[in-house]
Amino acid sequence: MKAYKVLEVKQSVFAANDKEANELRLNLKEKGVFLLNLMSSPGSGKTTTLQRTIEALKDEMKIGIMEADIDSEVDAQTISDTGVKAIQLHTGGMCHLDAAMTKQGLEGLEIDEIDLAVLENVGNLVCPAEFDTGSSKNAMILSVPEGHDKPLKYPLMFSICDVVLINKIDVLPYFDFDMEKCREYVHMRNPQAKVIPICARTGEGMDEWYDWLRHEVQNWKKK
Amino acid sequence: MKAYKVLEVKQSVFAANDKEANELRLNLKEKGVFLLNLMSSPGSGKTTTLQRTIEALKDEMKIGIMEADIDSEVDAQTISDTGVKAIQLHTGGMCHLDAAMTKQGLEGLEIDEIDLAVLENVGNLVCPAEFDTGSSKNAMILSVPEGHDKPLKYPLMFSICDVVLINKIDVLPYFDFDMEKCREYVHMRNPQAKVIPICARTGEGMDEWYDWLRHEVQNWKKK
Repeated sequence: MKAYKVLEVKQSVFAANDKEANELRLNLKEKGVFLLNLMSSPGSGKTTTLQRTIEALKDEMKIGIMEADIDSEVDAQTISDTGVKAIQLHTGGMCHLDAAMTKQGLEGLEIDEIDLAVLENVGNLVCPAEFDTGSSKNAMILSVPEGHDKPLKYPLMFSICDVVLINKIDVLPYFDFDMEKCREYVHMRNPQAKVIPICARTGEGMDEWYDWLRHEVQNWKKK
Repeated sequence: MKAYKVLEVKQSVFAANDKEANELRLNLKEKGVFLLNLMSSPGSGKTTTLQRTIEALKDEMKIGIMEADIDSEVDAQTISDTGVKAIQLHTGGMCHLDAAMTKQGLEGLEIDEIDLAVLENVGNLVCPAEFDTGSSKNAMILSVPEGHDKPLKYPLMFSICDVVLINKIDVLPYFDFDMEKCREYVHMRNPQAKVIPICARTGEGMDEWYDWLRHEVQNWKKK
């Protein structure tokens, strides 16, 4: 039996999205629910990063996960195995989530009981950056095999993210990835962005990420 | 001085795209120009694969390359260094190319002189699959670090590709990538798809890819 629900979400009108996103954010602030929008390319390690993050933080806060995918359920199964509440959002071919879709997902999660809700967005460095989901903060993962030049090629995504996790640093010896250049390019797009090198598989660097997230969740609950 | 032009391309109306794509394909068939639409996630190795392909084939056919990107010119510079004609297409934030944009690019390339035109599409496994560019054949690259489960998550992309290159096989020992499962998942989406494991960096497996491409280009020229 599946330990998660499957929702078919529909796109709202683009023009109304910003308004809807702001209303959702205010509503979440009132309820003390921190919503993290997690974005990346396909295969950069969103689900593995989330698995470890859940393991590290689930005893100190209530966590709910929304897995957005075009039509599979691979990730919701993986996440629900960690014991936290997970829901699968099917976008029906859509390449991103907007605020209305996110709101439908949060309703499915029963948000009043949750401290940290994470939206694992569709794997895509372009479209998800264009739609405000109503999130408290935006995070993205860039993995080492993708190359350090990605902030030059996908400027909007890097400019809207509060934190950029550089994942798969265990394979740095096998790729031409220049961490300092990567930091420089990220900061060209967004001087405020926090850059954290991690390896979700081995756990290296993850403590700095947990500290960032823990701090943001606590901060969000303050009036 | 730049050895390539920069074009700002605009999106055509979605409904008209299929018609425009078919007209473009017929027109290219008459002229004997084979158009390859090359798609993948960001960082899976499209440009490196193209570089090596150009080196291998440029003495036997005239090649022109269209580099689509949201707003950088990194790849057009790399490609024009190989000595073939390259043009940069800027999509102005758009996440894919359609037939009208491709046609504008081909006009910039002066197609009458070219046997093989390659469109390096925007790095994205979702949206480019939805728009017929007018290409003779569709190719995609999935790289080992992205994981063998991607055909499950991005079904449309895998279903429309005639050939799937599995790149970065040199790092197979460092990732949990199951090549047989990957083939099985690709063929679930598209039983006809040819799957070729390659390493664009070392050249491993590339001969099979060159043979496929050489054969398709020659076939396209037959009446």
